[in-house]
Amino acid sequence: MKLSPDSALLTDLYELTMLQAYFDAGMNETASFELFVRALPMQRNFMMAAGLEQVLDYLERLRFTADELSALSKTGRFPTPFLRSLEHLRFTGDVDAMREGTVFFPDEPIIRITAPMREAQLVESRIMNLAHFETVVASKAARCVLAAPDKLLVDFGLRRAHGAEAALLSARAAYMAGFGGTATLAAGLAFDIPVYGTMAHSYVQAYTDEALAFEAFARSQPANATLLIDTYDTEAAARKVVALAPLLARDGIAIHGVRIDSGDLAEHARRVRRILDEGGLSAVTIFASGNLDEYRLRRLMADQAPIDAFGVGTRMNTSSDAPYLDCAYKLVDYAGEPRRKRSEGKATWPACKAVYRLRGPNDAMAGDWITLARERRDGEPLLEPTMRDGKRCAAPATLQSSRDHAWRQLRALPNAQRTLDVDEPYPVAVSDGLRELARRLDEGLAPN
Amino acid sequence: MKLSPDSALLTDLYELTMLQAYFDAGMNETASFELFVRALPMQRNFMMAAGLEQVLDYLERLRFTADELSALSKTGRFPTPFLRSLEHLRFTGDVDAMREGTVFFPDEPIIRITAPMREAQLVESRIMNLAHFETVVASKAARCVLAAPDKLLVDFGLRRAHGAEAALLSARAAYMAGFGGTATLAAGLAFDIPVYGTMAHSYVQAYTDEALAFEAFARSQPANATLLIDTYDTEAAARKVVALAPLLARDGIAIHGVRIDSGDLAEHARRVRRILDEGGLSAVTIFASGNLDEYRLRRLMADQAPIDAFGVGTRMNTSSDAPYLDCAYKLVDYAGEPRRKRSEGKATWPACKAVYRLRGPNDAMAGDWITLARERRDGEPLLEPTMRDGKRCAAPATLQSSRDHAWRQLRALPNAQRTLDVDEPYPVAVSDGLRELARRLDEGLAPN
Repeated sequence: MKLSPDSALLTDLYELTMLQAYFDAGMNETASFELFVRALPMQRNFMMAAGLEQVLDYLERLRFTADELSALSKTGRFPTPFLRSLEHLRFTGDVDAMREGTVFFPDEPIIRITAPMREAQLVESRIMNLAHFETVVASKAARCVLAAPDKLLVDFGLRRAHGAEAALLSARAAYMAGFGGTATLAAGLAFDIPVYGTMAHSYVQAYTDEALAFEAFARSQPANATLLIDTYDTEAAARKVVALAPLLARDGIAIHGVRIDSGDLAEHARRVRRILDEGGLSAVTIFASGNLDEYRLRRLMADQAPIDAFGVGTRMNTSSDAPYLDCAYKLVDYAGEPRRKRSEGKATWPACKAVYRLRGPNDAMAGDWITLARERRDGEPLLEPTMRDGKRCAAPATLQSSRDHAWRQLRALPNAQRTLDVDEPYPVAVSDGLRELARRLDEGLAPN
Repeated sequence: MKLSPDSALLTDLYELTMLQAYFDAGMNETASFELFVRALPMQRNFMMAAGLEQVLDYLERLRFTADELSALSKTGRFPTPFLRSLEHLRFTGDVDAMREGTVFFPDEPIIRITAPMREAQLVESRIMNLAHFETVVASKAARCVLAAPDKLLVDFGLRRAHGAEAALLSARAAYMAGFGGTATLAAGLAFDIPVYGTMAHSYVQAYTDEALAFEAFARSQPANATLLIDTYDTEAAARKVVALAPLLARDGIAIHGVRIDSGDLAEHARRVRRILDEGGLSAVTIFASGNLDEYRLRRLMADQAPIDAFGVGTRMNTSSDAPYLDCAYKLVDYAGEPRRKRSEGKATWPACKAVYRLRGPNDAMAGDWITLARERRDGEPLLEPTMRDGKRCAAPATLQSSRDHAWRQLRALPNAQRTLDVDEPYPVAVSDGLRELARRLDEGLAPN
């Protein structure tokens, strides 16, 4: 059968077998699950929350269609009364969450779902699938933004993103984290993100003469031509651009930029800049691409390479040095009682929690508290009521407002988190109330 | 706007700006593009081709809908005559490709598209997006299969896959490479893959008594219950399973298996196996999961851990040690003339090519030749005619037949490719004819 990404069947089989067991046992008390990251990947000093809007969309639309129920029935795994109970299943619960673009740290819940157990359990797989991935990408893209804060960064990663949704959502997450746009047309249209495009080497190769390729392209894109100049000899191509410019100018056509995609980008950019400037083309911008990530951006910035914009693809879209997070969606409360998993090396903090952030001079982040939700602390509470009884508490946040929020968050990072290298961890403290509860659970609530 | 993964707009903007330039210049001669991998990632000794069926589906369905053309028109980037030309655009070309499941090496074309230039160019982004990702996953999954060839491996990766399509296609690619199934319900239904499921820690935590949780679950899933036993104390839980079994047996219910998800899996499995066996439950299987990949599988196999099945998730689905390939879709022929890109460090072999594979004793792979398509060699040609004039040459290959092919390919791997470690590279030779053509192009066809 053909499935949409919105399908309620995009879940792990075990969610449904557990639902059936709850159905059979008549269990459906209120459950709270929290999504959090257990530990930072080696090469990250912070995470940036993303994907909440997609999670809320999913929860709002959650339902089993007649076709899906019929497909489930045909598997022979599920009895009819249980399948009938799914027919009317909707998400009727509450969501408390960090705003997209918020910087966060290990053990801090970023999304809490509170709902009747069956609803809260069913949504585990897809909520993680959405929020984990966008958080992975936003966290990587934010590092690129920190490495080249004043440059235009453009997502170039559709071709090596992990499928269609990864391409669309990574474009979104990167834009939120501070990228200036994407090359992926569909992402631009879906999320109202600026779209950038140049040309491929194949375009130049299709002509037997590189200068002819440039001219034809500029005439076809008179407002916006960025010419790829590294197919054969980068500096020779830059001189062809200089020779071509006056011809085009007569027809009112200005070349917008050139792109370099191979070799020593800083050295080529310097030479090309000189050729362009000496040819009177100081307004022509230089766009660079090719295996870029935050480390290469940092080196190019330190080199003062005269590059105006960067196409950042594969390594950002796949977060290639940390393509996943050690995250979990854990039951913290059921039927009014706090719960705690104690598996070796995977114990989790029990109960519904809050996160408070303290600020220092210049509004810089100074430390976080993880507390019980009922405790009060000084500082800014990071989890906000987002959905109540299955309805959003406010209109969806615009991507632009999340992007502004992310920018303010990056500005408030302490220096140790702003660097790309491993540095002092950010101070996150766990309240005495929470520690005490965990201890009491370990002593008193052990199952028998 | 809402976009389906099939949308023709799921492409890079530059594909459309190039198409417009070709339209303006009246250029639409026959072009051949080849998709290949430039170099193996450090931790790979071979690649396994995958994703061809999705590529062919995409090509068969390719068209711009009225809504999409209207969205394009609203961007103000494209003149009406060009947009009208897109209205009737269909893929009318040829595809030659390696069968899915074929083992391949750098510089070997795995898919060749031959079509009027505009069609062949437009499809670049999505073809790469599909074939690259599935190839990445199949290549990683194949290593897991090599590490534990006689075990049931189940894809557990939906939650940390990069979005919905990544979850579905990684389940497919892993199954093709030799996994036995997936936990992702939607993938099972979409691709007819066996689906496996157990239970989550939250299920155990929702009960105040672990044994009650086990009993309720087994009664709800009488044919198929696999109980998760590491929420609190793994061995204590195994003893609860032993105590529970006779009660359930009275009602005709047999426990199918137990799952261990944390700690020293080999040591826990040994202790649990002993507890189960001594309790008369030698038929109960042990399922292990938790951050598994080919290296951990190899160690567990070397340890002779009594584990019957493995849930392999995140690291496989994201191919975490090599989440992308250095692959390219390059123009190799236009209007009957071979083409070659010469960018620094990124030069490519010109012209339409063939790959021939030689076999040694026991049918083992003995070396490949990359030749001009018109050359003939001994050995098995790896590229097959797959589509002609936009129509498939045969009915879609079943996933099962591709899986069988993949299995035969893995069996024929030389020892150096079968190991997980870096070893002698597989011999791939380039024919004199191809070398000579490249040399002539470099000397004679330099653009001016």
